[in-house]
Order: sequence, then structure tokens, then C-alpha cells
Amino acid sequence: MKEIFVSDLLRRVGNATTIELHGWIASKRCQGKVIFLDVCDSTGKIQVVISGNDVPSRMFDSVKHWPVESGVTVHGALVHSPKGQPELHAIDITLVGGVTKEFSPHPRSQIDIFDEGLIPHLLTNRHMYIRNPKVMAILQFRDCLMHYMRTWFHSNRYTSIEAPILTPVPLYDDGTAMPITVHDEKVYLTQCVGYYLEAAVHAFERVFNIGPSFRGEEGRSKRHLMEYWHIKAEVAWCNLDDIIASVENIVSYLTKKCTEEQGLTIHAALGTNLCTDGLVTPYPRISYEDAIRLLSCKGIQTEFGKSLSSDCEAELSKHFPGRPFWVTGIPRTIEPFPYVIDPDDARITRVADLIASNGYGELLGTAEKISDIQMLDERLRDKNKGGDARFEFVRDVHQVGCIPHAAFGMGVERMVRWMLNIPHVRDCIPFPRTFKRSITP
Amino acid sequence: MKEIFVSDLLRRVGNATTIELHGWIASKRCQGKVIFLDVCDSTGKIQVVISGNDVPSRMFDSVKHWPVESGVTVHGALVHSPKGQPELHAIDITLVGGVTKEFSPHPRSQIDIFDEGLIPHLLTNRHMYIRNPKVMAILQFRDCLMHYMRTWFHSNRYTSIEAPILTPVPLYDDGTAMPITVHDEKVYLTQCVGYYLEAAVHAFERVFNIGPSFRGEEGRSKRHLMEYWHIKAEVAWCNLDDIIASVENIVSYLTKKCTEEQGLTIHAALGTNLCTDGLVTPYPRISYEDAIRLLSCKGIQTEFGKSLSSDCEAELSKHFPGRPFWVTGIPRTIEPFPYVIDPDDARITRVADLIASNGYGELLGTAEKISDIQMLDERLRDKNKGGDARFEFVRDVHQVGCIPHAAFGMGVERMVRWMLNIPHVRDCIPFPRTFKRSITP
Repeated sequence: MKEIFVSDLLRRVGNATTIELHGWIASKRCQGKVIFLDVCDSTGKIQVVISGNDVPSRMFDSVKHWPVESGVTVHGALVHSPKGQPELHAIDITLVGGVTKEFSPHPRSQIDIFDEGLIPHLLTNRHMYIRNPKVMAILQFRDCLMHYMRTWFHSNRYTSIEAPILTPVPLYDDGTAMPITVHDEKVYLTQCVGYYLEAAVHAFERVFNIGPSFRGEEGRSKRHLMEYWHIKAEVAWCNLDDIIASVENIVSYLTKKCTEEQGLTIHAALGTNLCTDGLVTPYPRISYEDAIRLLSCKGIQTEFGKSLSSDCEAELSKHFPGRPFWVTGIPRTIEPFPYVIDPDDARITRVADLIASNGYGELLGTAEKISDIQMLDERLRDKNKGGDARFEFVRDVHQVGCIPHAAFGMGVERMVRWMLNIPHVRDCIPFPRTFKRSITP
Repeated sequence: MKEIFVSDLLRRVGNATTIELHGWIASKRCQGKVIFLDVCDSTGKIQVVISGNDVPSRMFDSVKHWPVESGVTVHGALVHSPKGQPELHAIDITLVGGVTKEFSPHPRSQIDIFDEGLIPHLLTNRHMYIRNPKVMAILQFRDCLMHYMRTWFHSNRYTSIEAPILTPVPLYDDGTAMPITVHDEKVYLTQCVGYYLEAAVHAFERVFNIGPSFRGEEGRSKRHLMEYWHIKAEVAWCNLDDIIASVENIVSYLTKKCTEEQGLTIHAALGTNLCTDGLVTPYPRISYEDAIRLLSCKGIQTEFGKSLSSDCEAELSKHFPGRPFWVTGIPRTIEPFPYVIDPDDARITRVADLIASNGYGELLGTAEKISDIQMLDERLRDKNKGGDARFEFVRDVHQVGCIPHAAFGMGVERMVRWMLNIPHVRDCIPFPRTFKRSITP
């Protein structure tokens, strides 16, 4: 098993002999009797110097012909150059993984992964370009974000409840979900695990689920995937203000921890700084009604009761420069049934959406959930689901000790995209499933 | 938002006034001018004493009629009984979540959740019985196990790679996977994310994925679910012995941490001790060939090249009392194509399965994966997948710097079942999807 990583060598102060390093050739230069290789692994890259004086001439001649991307094992001495740069002086090098197929550009080379002309090739060959240092930096960041998300849940008494993917009940209308027939039964791939967390919240009080969610409807914007990772949480004895405060706490915490841990790496790999707009809480709020009034003053007309478009969100974000902001009081016409109707204004729900700074659009939603069976039945009828037997289990939960509870849901890829200033959510997941492209690999 | 939990009160040393507790009535006894309630929350239960002398008579009379399972908010003083038992003396109590539908037995009552007669009712109403203290204890244990699994990965340099659910390629034959048509394309729900981790391991070197996996084939044993949670990991520069050592390290670590953290809770809830058979490593090994010889001596004939049945595994486990054990050298006929053929014996693969103690059967599998394109092509032809264009991306990975790597995969529910001595894996997941029952809720 591999024991020494490039990052260990880069951190090492003194020189050392008998180093064994496994890695891949990222680039190569031959200068007479010396070959310089950049050998990389998951933690970085280091220069390997192969001198005709130090290795057998047969080995030296072989290395000349090894293509970049080859997997190699190097034995040698760690030496610091006069400038203090660590490099590995090889005494032996073995070809472990050869190259029998050419990918151009080379997967590990410095390329613009956001170049629209290159993107179809990169996506078709994602299984190769996942080796690219920029792709890797994004996915390492994603891993870091999910790690701290779980750390937050763990230190705040939340229990993980892995809810099922196969479900008879979508959150929105059946036509918006992805159907599947399982042993002659027509069900759906989960659109939202809220129904299951709601059942569980009456036991565990604070629950979360991090898992895949699916959309059947096409959504060709830069923040929609067919299959994405969804963080959902539900909290008992909690109202809308409480859940908003929790989410602000989370976003601020994630911003802080991810910046500390990944800021330099991201800057080195992508040349950009992390977005730290989420650091300072609380975030400003604007009601949906005020938002459409404000947009109207700017010449953008939105009918009360319709969703705010991406353009509307981008325009609103100019009103709150450098800050994410809440849109509160979303109309009942556009929200699904489980959310509380505002007691003071029956046109709207106790739902607030968090909109990213810099025009990145909706990041996540929070809601007070219905605990009263009468209100639930009214809302089921509102959405033409009254009498639909599939929702009886949701009604059951509301008939036995159902107490005030609230929820939030955020897409992992949207959060990564916003914090890294990345054009499209497809770059924020290892193997994206988009609407335009077939599912392959 | 709720601030004080039952466990906080149970831990508290002195008496205290002005406590506010939110919870549910688990049981109730009325004795003249005093009502005793057991009020529970996610952390335990505490006795609440309501005296006719301390609360208004109207309130006292109301409480008499509140059914168990009601959600309540209690204000009162924390007092220690003469025996040192903490109890809450109410000065005010409010009904927050009423009960308008009866479930019998009461979800939070002391029932035998493994009673075969009761199980159909419990499964149909899993959304209610998830409140049962025994069900909760199992799911808390699951949460703990997954937490330490991630902790182990995190401290051993692994990166989480969330692989897709929608995939064109099953691990075994197409007929064994669950098909779905997405925008006119026939794909499958993932059976194993190994292909994606294999692509990623050439970038990140140590990767894992914890997520749902699906089987299309019926499997009516006590260790099969249609949808289950699968822990998969893949490691670069690693052979079979390395991956076996890693898995032993994991199982021992999980056993230690889960016992420390959950041992007492599980004993209190289920009346059983955790299985600690995984503590001492290394685990014994037996080759597949020796195993069928041993079974033959006991009168159980298994043809070389066939899978060992559950009965075979149970019989073998008597040979290694109180220890999990490895079966090594599984025949190529029963293993899928990605695993290395043994260089010394072309009938078998470099695969080892870990079999649980106490007859709980196969827990997990480990394998050295093929890094050589010629061997890969041979194995693809073996499995009638030669020329199948869907596997070209797997071939690509093997043609560019592919280096020795190994993998393991374990079902979360099997591990939970073994460690808790539970009859069936369906009890080890929040909302089980079994082959016998329709998908509802």
C-alpha cells in the first residue's frame, strides 16, 4: 500500500534518501542527459530528475518514450534545489500503468475546463477528465463542504435518516417526477424526502438526509441537474425564524471552514477566490410581494403568484450587493402542499428561499411545515391531491401527536457553484446527469 | 426552538425550577389527585407529576383525557425523588399535538418489534412505528456506525465521490438490475458504483461512496433488500492483502467505537449485547476450495464454481466460533468481470468475502481489480460483454495509466444486523423496500 504522498514530500524539511513514490507523469522535458518529469498524485506534483549518470542507460532510454499520463513508481532521494524547491532524484523508475489510448488534451494537463468548445468532449470523457487538477480541486472542495455539513449536523444533535429513493409520492405533481415500474408497481425516484423526514422528526426531533434527488421535468438552466445531491433537514419544535437562523448558522459555518481549509488550494487550481458573502449573518430579507414591487419599478413585471425567474433573482441580488438574501412569504399557488399558510395572509406560505449573491440564483428553501390535519387536508385539496390514498401515510403522521416543525432543503451542487463562482452545476458533481446529454458513461 | 432535552434533565444533579420540556406522552397513570405521565423525546423519558394542588383544576381534568402519543409542552420544576430519580413537577402543561387516529399497539409502547405476527402491521405503518424506542435504538446505532465509517475514511485520506444512481451499466447481467427509461433511454439504477470509483481512484487514489444500491432480482433471504445502502471504497497502489487489512481495521474500529457509544443504549432498548466478534484482527481465512472440501466432509456437497449458500456459510461459521472469517479465491464463474484472475490458478479470482460469525452470512467483499487491458478484455468476453459499447469507458480507464488497485463493498444493513443480532435486514433501514411488499409508504 502506498505510504508516501507528494504533499508529504513537499512539506518535508531536510533531504532524505530511499523515498518510494507512486504517481503519474503529468509532464516531461528531456534535456540531453537529464529528463525532468512532473510526477503527480492525489495531493500535488513534484519534479523528478532522471540523470543519465544515476540510472542505467537502458532505463534512461525507456523513460524518454513513456508518454504523459503513465503510472510510475520512482525510487530516489529527496533533494532541495538551490531555491529550496524539493525534487526527487531518481535512482530507479518503473512503468506501472502504460498508455495505449490517446486523449487530447491530456487529462492531467492545464486546460480551461469551462471552455464551451471543450465541454462536450470533457463531459463525454468525464471518466478520464476527472483526473484533471481543476476538476479534482472542485470535487475536493465538494467533499470538504459535505464533511463540514455532516460535522455541523452531528454537533447539533441531528440523526441521519436515509430515506428511500423509490417512493409512491412525488413532492410536486406526478408529471414532474421520474417514474419507474418496479415489479408491476408504478412508483417514482424521490424528488424530496420530506415526507419521510417528517415521519422521523416525530421520533428523533432533528433529522437530516444527504442523498440523491431526481427531476423528471426538463430544466435546462445552469442550476438544474436530472440527478443531484440534496441536503434535507427537519426539526421538531421549530418555526420559520428558528430554521432561518439555523440555515444562516450553517452557511456561515461552511463558508468559514471551507475557506480555511480549501481557499488556497482553490486559488492555486482555479485562480479564483472563494465567495465569502455568506460569512456575516443575519442575511437581509425581502417579502415576495415587496420583491415583485421592486422589480416592477425596474420595469420587470411579475404577476403575483408566479415564480420569480432567474433573471428576477439576478436583478434582486443587485439590491443586496455581496450578500445572500431571503425572499419570504412565497405564494401558496407555487408552493407544494406541506407548508403552512400564513395566518395573517392566506395568499402566502411560511416559506423563505435563500437567494445567492452575484446572480447565482436560489440556493435553498426553508419552510414551516403543517402540523394541523385540517390545514393539511385543505392544502391537499388545493393541489388536487384530496382523497389520493398515497398520501394517507402523510395524513397519519399529522393525526398522532403532530407538533410544530420546520424544514430546509439545499442542493449540494448549487452551494458549490456559488462558493466557487463556477458557470454550471454540472461541474460540481463527479458524474453529472444533465437533460441535454444521454446517460453515458 | 427546543433547548432542553430529557437526557439533559436526567444528567442534571441539583433540583431546578422553570424547566420547559417539549415531548410526547409515552404512558399515563391517574391516581386520585395526581397524574403520572412518562414524557419522552428523542433522548429518553422522564416522569412528569401533575398534582391537583399545583395546577388549575380545569387543566388537571383536561390532562386526564389526553391520550398517549399526544405532543405536550410542560413547564415545571425538576425534583429528585427520595430514591434520587429525577422527575418534573408540572405547574403548567399544554397539549401541542393531539391524537385523532388510533394506532394499536401504541407506536411508543413496549412491543416486540420482531414478532412475526406483528411485522406486517409494523411495516405497513413504518411511518408511525419509527417512533418506537426499539426501532429508534436500531436507527441511532445505524447513524453511529455510518458516522464512524465516515470518520475512518476521513482520517485515512479518502475522498467521497458521489457516483450516479442512473447508469447504463450494471455490475452483473442486465437482468439482475432494475431498469428505468429516462427520456427514451433505457438505463439502470446502480447495482454497484465500482466503475465510477475506478475512474476516480486514478485521480484521488483513495475514494469511497456511501449511497443507495438496487437489485432487480428477487432475493427473499433475510439479508436482501431491493434498495439498500452500500459502502464502496477503492484504493490505488493496493493489493488484496492490503485491502483485507484495511477492512479488518475498519470492522474492528467500528466495533470498538459503536460498542463504547451505543452498547448501553442498545442493551437497555433491545435487551441484547452488541456483537464484538470483529474486535480482534486479523480474521482467519479459508480458501473457497478448502471450504467446499470441509463442507463435503460434513455431508454438504457444493460443486466447484457455484456460490456458497447461506446454509454453507452458516455451517462454515461453526468452524470459526465467535469470529468473522474470510473465504478467499472465489471462482471466476461467479465473480463479475472487473476482478483479477489469480496468476497461479486461472479458475479463481483475487476476491475474498468476509463471512459473519453466528451464521449471519456474507458481510462484505474485497477484490483486487484488473489494471491490465488484456485481462479486462478477456474477462469481458468471459461474461459475454465483449464489444458491448457501454463498457468502452471502463476500457478507457484501463488504457491510460491504469495502476494496481483494490476495492471493497459492504451493505450497511448487513453490518447493523450482525452487530445487533437482528433477525432481518429490513429492521436496519428507516423505510425498507423488500421484495415481498409493495412500495408504500
